Amino acid sequence: MTESRDDRPAAQVVFEDEEYRLAVIDLLGAVAYGELSAFERLADDAKLAPTMRDKVEMSGMASLEFGHVGRLHDRIRELGADPFEAMAPFEAAIDSFHVHTAPADWYEGLIKAYVGDGLAADFYREIAAYLDAETRDLIIASLDDSGQAVFAVRHIRQAIDDDPKLSGRLALWGRRLMGEALTQAQHVAAERDALSALLAGGIDRPGLDLAAIGRMFTRITERHNERMAEVGLSA
Amino acid sequence: MTESRDDRPAAQVVFEDEEYRLAVIDLLGAVAYGELSAFERLADDAKLAPTMRDKVEMSGMASLEFGHVGRLHDRIRELGADPFEAMAPFEAAIDSFHVHTAPADWYEGLIKAYVGDGLAADFYREIAAYLDAETRDLIIASLDDSGQAVFAVRHIRQAIDDDPKLSGRLALWGRRLMGEALTQAQHVAAERDALSALLAGGIDRPGLDLAAIGRMFTRITERHNERMAEVGLSA
Repeated sequence: MTESRDDRPAAQVVFEDEEYRLAVIDLLGAVAYGELSAFERLADDAKLAPTMRDKVEMSGMASLEFGHVGRLHDRIRELGADPFEAMAPFEAAIDSFHVHTAPADWYEGLIKAYVGDGLAADFYREIAAYLDAETRDLIIASLDDSGQAVFAVRHIRQAIDDDPKLSGRLALWGRRLMGEALTQAQHVAAERDALSALLAGGIDRPGLDLAAIGRMFTRITERHNERMAEVGLSA
Repeated sequence: MTESRDDRPAAQVVFEDEEYRLAVIDLLGAVAYGELSAFERLADDAKLAPTMRDKVEMSGMASLEFGHVGRLHDRIRELGADPFEAMAPFEAAIDSFHVHTAPADWYEGLIKAYVGDGLAADFYREIAAYLDAETRDLIIASLDDSGQAVFAVRHIRQAIDDDPKLSGRLALWGRRLMGEALTQAQHVAAERDALSALLAGGIDRPGLDLAAIGRMFTRITERHNERMAEVGLSA
């Protein structure tokens, strides 16, 4: 009667915590909708490309983002939820982000692909650290930037070399992307109880207190500044 | 001194015919640009989707079309040409096709995905029959419609069941797609000597006389009519 060893995989045990399961479904839904709208936006912004070669490069990024959606949907189904219902709560915030950050030209589009996706990836990676290993690996694989950073850095630096006046406008644009991302992240955090509870922790799961959340945002901001510096822009 | 057997692969021998090599590069360039613009158009038309599920379905088709571009480019490079230079001669005709056939709503977009891509695939398959086996297989693999026919047929039939008045407008739209495709195909045929020469045949390669070209267009038209009938529309 004593010592019944639990042979189920750790992931299965953790999903018996209903609140945890719902939070993970929420998070996967947010990432999936983020990737889907990144696909749409990159495919759209590819039209601004100055050459066919650039267009193919950006279209390739779009396709790769779309390629992650299927795996995220599969995982949501495995957790007993409908992927479309899981994505729905994040449509308004993510669409609103894109409406408020429609690039005016190819360079703003490149900065957005580079800085915007970098920000989103940092944020999800921070949250993923609090998850079971399987979910964490899936999310981190979905956030792989598939070479867009290298492509964007090269093109933006070149553009600023060619026309130094561009740097003022693009620096401003980078700050606007950051501000808009934070605004939308706050909306989501305020509305999605399960996600907020996830960050607060649970039985057998460490959580974040306010100070830790503050440190998390400091790290995200620092990484944003590093990215801006990488392309030669002040944050 | 007699009987020196030629151990080189057949594909290598046929590419020693410079005119043939140029024609194949032309054809691969046309298919590659066609796939690239199909990607752009499907990604755009996905915005017209009535539900998120439909949007994901059409975005998935877009991504798959893009997935073919890389292999076609690789093959063009193997044949000693630049893929972007190979695509360039077909931009005007293919872009013009899309400008003249911008769908007004989701259903026109579905018909275009189904009928337009079906037409292009039939045409390239007809030409591929005159090519070496390796090129033929690559082209046929690139034209795999990846489930969009099934998806389109189901949705269009349902839409016409729900609103029979739709069938008149969509039948007209199907004829317009056919007419526009033929117009642009004629422009290409008139301008691209290498492609026309390919159809006319060469040493060791059978060609098409005028009667055979006539029969080819009859087959393409018949298949178009079958596709229209499949969704319940008169051609």
